[in-house]
Amino acid sequence: MSVNKFGRILNFTTWGESHGSAIGCVIDGVPPRINLSEEDIQTWLDRRKPGQSRFTSQRQEPDKIEILSGVFENKTTGAPVSLIIRNVDARSRDYGEIADKYRPGHADYTYDAKYGIRDYRGGGRSSARETASRVAAGAIARKVLDSIIPGKINIRSALIQIGNQSINRQHWDNSEIEKNPFWCPDAIAAKNWEKYLEKIRKDGSSVGAIIEVTATGIPVGIGEPIYGKIDSELAMAMMSINAVKGVEVGEGMAAASLTGEENADEMYTENGNVKFKSNKSGGVLGGITTGQDIVVRFAVKPTSSILSERKTIDKSGVETKISTKGRHDPCVGIRAAPVGEAMMALVLADQLLRHRAQIGSIDF
Amino acid sequence: MSVNKFGRILNFTTWGESHGSAIGCVIDGVPPRINLSEEDIQTWLDRRKPGQSRFTSQRQEPDKIEILSGVFENKTTGAPVSLIIRNVDARSRDYGEIADKYRPGHADYTYDAKYGIRDYRGGGRSSARETASRVAAGAIARKVLDSIIPGKINIRSALIQIGNQSINRQHWDNSEIEKNPFWCPDAIAAKNWEKYLEKIRKDGSSVGAIIEVTATGIPVGIGEPIYGKIDSELAMAMMSINAVKGVEVGEGMAAASLTGEENADEMYTENGNVKFKSNKSGGVLGGITTGQDIVVRFAVKPTSSILSERKTIDKSGVETKISTKGRHDPCVGIRAAPVGEAMMALVLADQLLRHRAQIGSIDF
Amino acid sequence: MSVNKFGRILNFTTWGESHGSAIGCVIDGVPPRINLSEEDIQTWLDRRKPGQSRFTSQRQEPDKIEILSGVFENKTTGAPVSLIIRNVDARSRDYGEIADKYRPGHADYTYDAKYGIRDYRGGGRSSARETASRVAAGAIARKVLDSIIPGKINIRSALIQIGNQSINRQHWDNSEIEKNPFWCPDAIAAKNWEKYLEKIRKDGSSVGAIIEVTATGIPVGIGEPIYGKIDSELAMAMMSINAVKGVEVGEGMAAASLTGEENADEMYTENGNVKFKSNKSGGVLGGITTGQDIVVRFAVKPTSSILSERKTIDKSGVETKISTKGRHDPCVGIRAAPVGEAMMALVLADQLLRHRAQIGSIDF
Amino acid sequence: MSVNKFGRILNFTTWGESHGSAIGCVIDGVPPRINLSEEDIQTWLDRRKPGQSRFTSQRQEPDKIEILSGVFENKTTGAPVSLIIRNVDARSRDYGEIADKYRPGHADYTYDAKYGIRDYRGGGRSSARETASRVAAGAIARKVLDSIIPGKINIRSALIQIGNQSINRQHWDNSEIEKNPFWCPDAIAAKNWEKYLEKIRKDGSSVGAIIEVTATGIPVGIGEPIYGKIDSELAMAMMSINAVKGVEVGEGMAAASLTGEENADEMYTENGNVKFKSNKSGGVLGGITTGQDIVVRFAVKPTSSILSERKTIDKSGVETKISTKGRHDPCVGIRAAPVGEAMMALVLADQLLRHRAQIGSIDF
Repeated sequence: MSVNKFGRILNFTTWGESHGSAIGCVIDGVPPRINLSEEDIQTWLDRRKPGQSRFTSQRQEPDKIEILSGVFENKTTGAPVSLIIRNVDARSRDYGEIADKYRPGHADYTYDAKYGIRDYRGGGRSSARETASRVAAGAIARKVLDSIIPGKINIRSALIQIGNQSINRQHWDNSEIEKNPFWCPDAIAAKNWEKYLEKIRKDGSSVGAIIEVTATGIPVGIGEPIYGKIDSELAMAMMSINAVKGVEVGEGMAAASLTGEENADEMYTENGNVKFKSNKSGGVLGGITTGQDIVVRFAVKPTSSILSERKTIDKSGVETKISTKGRHDPCVGIRAAPVGEAMMALVLADQLLRHRAQIGSIDF
Repeated sequence: MSVNKFGRILNFTTWGESHGSAIGCVIDGVPPRINLSEEDIQTWLDRRKPGQSRFTSQRQEPDKIEILSGVFENKTTGAPVSLIIRNVDARSRDYGEIADKYRPGHADYTYDAKYGIRDYRGGGRSSARETASRVAAGAIARKVLDSIIPGKINIRSALIQIGNQSINRQHWDNSEIEKNPFWCPDAIAAKNWEKYLEKIRKDGSSVGAIIEVTATGIPVGIGEPIYGKIDSELAMAMMSINAVKGVEVGEGMAAASLTGEENADEMYTENGNVKFKSNKSGGVLGGITTGQDIVVRFAVKPTSSILSERKTIDKSGVETKISTKGRHDPCVGIRAAPVGEAMMALVLADQLLRHRAQIGSIDF
Repeated sequence: MSVNKFGRILNFTTWGESHGSAIGCVIDGVPPRINLSEEDIQTWLDRRKPGQSRFTSQRQEPDKIEILSGVFENKTTGAPVSLIIRNVDARSRDYGEIADKYRPGHADYTYDAKYGIRDYRGGGRSSARETASRVAAGAIARKVLDSIIPGKINIRSALIQIGNQSINRQHWDNSEIEKNPFWCPDAIAAKNWEKYLEKIRKDGSSVGAIIEVTATGIPVGIGEPIYGKIDSELAMAMMSINAVKGVEVGEGMAAASLTGEENADEMYTENGNVKFKSNKSGGVLGGITTGQDIVVRFAVKPTSSILSERKTIDKSGVETKISTKGRHDPCVGIRAAPVGEAMMALVLADQLLRHRAQIGSIDF
Repeated sequence: MSVNKFGRILNFTTWGESHGSAIGCVIDGVPPRINLSEEDIQTWLDRRKPGQSRFTSQRQEPDKIEILSGVFENKTTGAPVSLIIRNVDARSRDYGEIADKYRPGHADYTYDAKYGIRDYRGGGRSSARETASRVAAGAIARKVLDSIIPGKINIRSALIQIGNQSINRQHWDNSEIEKNPFWCPDAIAAKNWEKYLEKIRKDGSSVGAIIEVTATGIPVGIGEPIYGKIDSELAMAMMSINAVKGVEVGEGMAAASLTGEENADEMYTENGNVKFKSNKSGGVLGGITTGQDIVVRFAVKPTSSILSERKTIDKSGVETKISTKGRHDPCVGIRAAPVGEAMMALVLADQLLRHRAQIGSIDF
């Protein structure tokens, strides 16, 4: 029932606000005897941290991870792993305007309506800063996956659309993803996005994005039926990321337009292995993996922290206007990509452990 | 951890297979002293049951609900409500082909890979027959909602696309929804769909659909943050329905293309009430309701049970072909509409109870 | 959060009232491919059912179990197992007195205070009739245990005290337990109890009892630390049985009087196997099994349904008196013994599955 | 499923090892707008901390609490409250003997058997140091209770037995409890215990204890039935405390010896209020409160860290001997008293919130 907890057997609980002294999480259910160091986590955190290009927030956070428990002599012990990240660049400034006015498109109004109190500093608990904890927990999930199925599982995300600019899937090249500040697999699109987003940034505007997360190497038969479906949990996971408004698996929303003939992934064998002629299903049927790539997409809305003045109301219900100055992300989708990967890793690792519970072993 | 359970405080557990003797569910956490009769549930079940038009499965199931516990003198007692629906038209026939061959696009292969055993009769546990239990549980959720906020909350679903045929949103008329066999709010589209789907049906083919579910009357401030977000739970809920491949809230996937200016719902007041100029958010910000309509869409893929022969393999891994004869749904999206409504009701009722736990009361 | 659910991975949800049409439960998380028939469950239910001697309630219930789902061709499929037991001897009689007056020592008053409504017929949901579902679920837990560690695990309970009459532990003989109507391991005590309890019964009075449940064959290393301790879950399990007021593990309350020297179970080896010189711990250290017998005791209070008139109040708060006529159990502890066994089996099976999840396999 | 988490709506997750850099916990589900400062927590922690008399461990830990999140301007926000306590006196010493040998009566052997790895420094995760987090969480639970039912609820614990020395209940005086180092309500017994325990301490031996925890001011009707019983959760809570071997509610194990006449608490009215002539039930019937004092007792075994040499085995299975030198608690029951109080507060606060969820309000 903990609303700040995600996962069943491998699960994690996050805590902390944007401008508090620290943020962190507790990861429970980690199997023992897995090699784990702070560097193993730092590597992934560094991919998400702000201020790495001019297209993400200029907040300067080293996002230095510290392991407080659950690891002994560089190995997990089965005890809960507590992680902490100190907030460094929580500027001491005048929050007057945000404190009193509701930013349209933000959770300011809904938090106040629910709780009757709100830590308005940097968005408080509703800030995407919380996702740093997800990335840290995701790094441990990757270690868990690798301890169960060594060297086989790969999870990566890519931006396939920024604003109204899509990639050309014919150009997809995984090696390009790390070469541009957008996690874009299409080198030509990446070039165009640079100009496009630069203009958005200078205008003080923002745009949304679509991120595609793919997991390879997950064997057939993982996942649970009905309310424990792997795609259902992925939908929950991705929709829980700040600013996400849509989630798709495989063909996604476009599946509605297909006929049964087009949609069914025909099966055959090759050297004794089961194969599919297509992957319309996105690697999941009945909530259980087919052994193909698991493919999930999610859409991130444009951040509402923009320079243009918008109409709104203040805490006492008086109409007013607001304009967000200072550092912000012109496309928060960029920093959502490592978070999507982390959530995929967390769902898959949890499902593998649950599979072990009910089935007793994992064949791969 | 129960994979057949959904919900936290108001929760339900379903059981039963397509061709077993019965299906049913246990609803726990129902507040006491709510009027509840079998007719209250039957009304909603009747909307989902098969065989009501030539566009849904011809299986003849009365779907007669029986309340076994939790109700005393027509009032809930706070004890778990157990519901049962007897299976009637589970034809005794030769299942030979389905028993041995994997239908492409179905969960046959993944269930066998996971469990090493499969009740192949009518799809067993992976059949959409399970969703009758959801509709029954949803009927109780509606009663719970109405007991907390009397007469205000309305939840309805509508098909906005069948195959490649969309409605014209300018024609939207709620009163049309119940007048055609498609839950279509656009009278003109409904006419066209009749011809379109009749052809699909006669060809033994199938198409997908997009369903939009709307809840009105939910007050501001309901929902929980981070991993208990109302939109995150709706995503999980809808994606758990058979054949669903995508879920959207508010602008959904299209939010990616918007700018911050376009996306932010500006606020103003009218007669002292907080109002929004638009509802791009779909009624949810930060996982918490804004007081506007909650709008969710989900895409259902075309059923893979089609007449056309498809390539597949059998249980021993030998390549073969399969063609599904007999009764089937040319568009399973039609029958998914009442299920989507039920899941919306269940998520909202659970969230209202959770709100009461943490905040102590509900203002409306 | 379901209050009618017990267990984590292997879990069950019960429903039904004493005088409703039926009671039952849904068992979720059962591993697939375990042989399971109705007889496997009926055997254990028959040990608990009333009317088997003059020392238990004369209510005549065949307690005939019916499996509604989750089993295909006599094997579990991994889908939830739904069980139902029809109530037969729910006498249609005048409940007037119980309906209006609160029986001292019963939950009548507290249920009314909480829910504002109460199914008073036979105690409704608060009746020990609910425990039939536990015994049925426990039968499945035994099958799960046996499928994981074949032929090794044995769980049995025995009454070691009735009223103020204890057994002599020197006389303990497991083979005696099934030979008398008290599950008493001491043949001499059983004889004495017969006379003792006969007098209690004739007087319309009642007495309490202490039940000891022992599990043999559980390997070392099962159980979880902190809030998932095997002894902590056993305490919760036993205390949840109707009328239980105390639970002990190993030395139990008497451990307070021991010195550290007396209490520590010294260790040695024998033929390469780890052995203990004593079992003061009751087979659990730090919440994890030692490989020794797991020993739990619980005390059942005397039923408050007695012939003697007691002072009480009625629903409107007026002082009155009440005397319970008709069938009742002079010592409900007798029928609690099979329930305690079932709860032990359920906790152990769940813990074995959880162990598999986190550790990956079970050594024995 | 988190094994390091306790509670449903108000819940907490603990982390940390005895000799790691810190311990702590995350409390989730705390209602908003409750005044909370570090002093509110420190007060209770100070009662538990070691080194306060010669009868508890001489480890010097200031147990200084730090609130890392969930509080803004000295009020809770509804966000998770993260607490941290730095370990200070984790002596850097040679752990050689404990690292290799299993201390009889400790969890050394079972942890190694389960996890295949063990943080042996000071007992690692199995150390009672974890209970500091419980006391801190319990302090917040007290604030929650007081925010719901202001000024009425009081929870206190007392030692009623140390080793074989019981108090005389006729001498019970609540004001004595804080006046001696044993939380003993009987001034005469406290005097005797001082001599008794001094000898135990000098001998390097240890004894157990029985602690009684009482909650006053909880209204009638709180608690849930079947598997959510308040007494069942208290049993789980108390049994989860290190070294606890038995838990009793009301008459406890002694209820077995009573007759129905003796055990039933007769009811009457006084000035329109419902009253009971006795409290054999310990304030709970059917898992729900009666409005009387809630009375729970638990037995703590003697610590196995004693000077006397005991036979044991080492990690490689070779027989050896062990003697624990250095600081230890001659009666760990003393420091368990504040922990028992905390667990009572946590169970009650969680149940009050759950009551609000299902019933909608709390009458008192």
